[in-house]
Amino acid sequence: MKSNTKISNAVIKRLPRYRRYLKELQRKGVDKISSRELSDLIGYTASQIRQDLNNFGGFGQQGYGYNVDALYNEISIILGLDREYKMIVVGAGNMGQAIANHTYYYKAGFIVCALFEVNPKLIGLKINDISVLDYENIVEYIEENAIDIGIICTTKDSAQEIADKMAFAGVKGIWNFAPVDLEVPDHIAVENVHLSDGLHSLAYHINRNQNK
Amino acid sequence: MKSNTKISNAVIKRLPRYRRYLKELQRKGVDKISSRELSDLIGYTASQIRQDLNNFGGFGQQGYGYNVDALYNEISIILGLDREYKMIVVGAGNMGQAIANHTYYYKAGFIVCALFEVNPKLIGLKINDISVLDYENIVEYIEENAIDIGIICTTKDSAQEIADKMAFAGVKGIWNFAPVDLEVPDHIAVENVHLSDGLHSLAYHINRNQNK
Repeated sequence: MKSNTKISNAVIKRLPRYRRYLKELQRKGVDKISSRELSDLIGYTASQIRQDLNNFGGFGQQGYGYNVDALYNEISIILGLDREYKMIVVGAGNMGQAIANHTYYYKAGFIVCALFEVNPKLIGLKINDISVLDYENIVEYIEENAIDIGIICTTKDSAQEIADKMAFAGVKGIWNFAPVDLEVPDHIAVENVHLSDGLHSLAYHINRNQNK
Repeated sequence: MKSNTKISNAVIKRLPRYRRYLKELQRKGVDKISSRELSDLIGYTASQIRQDLNNFGGFGQQGYGYNVDALYNEISIILGLDREYKMIVVGAGNMGQAIANHTYYYKAGFIVCALFEVNPKLIGLKINDISVLDYENIVEYIEENAIDIGIICTTKDSAQEIADKMAFAGVKGIWNFAPVDLEVPDHIAVENVHLSDGLHSLAYHINRNQNK
């Protein structure tokens, strides 16, 4: 990897997708693949794929293609998936619980350490063996446990205040499920989840197919 | 809109994002906006924005920019958001319940008509006033109620079998939360949700910021 190269956000957003397909190829025992074959799989053009992967110094060899294992490992390292991340979830409703219960994250190194709630009926419970703690104590908890990622699973009304506390306490990234754009200091990364975008794309294709 | 123009999937995927930002502009009382201003907001280049919106015959006027209301309405129509969609959810776990409870979808015309389960402890319950029905009866229900969209909120092991039943019964689109690629007939649209992709992008930015 060319260190300190500024890679566009669009490319970064595509890397997890490359990685998913490479993992699938590994499972099937495929050890090398051309940009054209990758294109058929993933749906990006072969030239886009070559351009994307060139950002990292290029792993491909003319006439040979990409080594699946090497590319998978390199993308994992680029994404920072070769270490663990400590996370907390604010909001122990359905979405918060879904994340706490999602064992995939643990296998992948993303550890939910605690959930936080304002609702006294939920405080003190355990979900998938993870404690639901009082939101009052969130700043202290983040500081003492060196939490990397804060996950917001509340309504949009409280999301900014929660983000402020998370930022103050020192999280490095926020995964935001509340339907609102957060304002946080530049050094904190934010990923917003807009589930309804997928539903809107689906609506388009349904209408398109019906009008054919 | 140029009818029957084939628009690339990449453009379609960007439209819900344009729409979200246009809605925000509407809320703020902004009535026109240039491609450059849109670029600052959304993060795509101005030339990309002009190219994207040109796919639909172009709404912009040189030196004036885009009319926010007109563009919002047009994108809504293109996406097919000017009608209602009847949906069912299979799997009444946390994710299924989160979707059933998400009132935004109802306001936007996406109606969850029923949830389906194999677990006898859940069958017969109501979630946000929506009945949890026996998965045994899914085909009949889809046919009788002309369901448009099937939502899969189960583990990956049962997802393909559920998709087959949905396809057989006549859904027009599938919103898949199970971490597996589904095989369905061409006339059925599929949107896969890969939540972990966002987490992986976040990991990248956290490492990037720490290495600065």
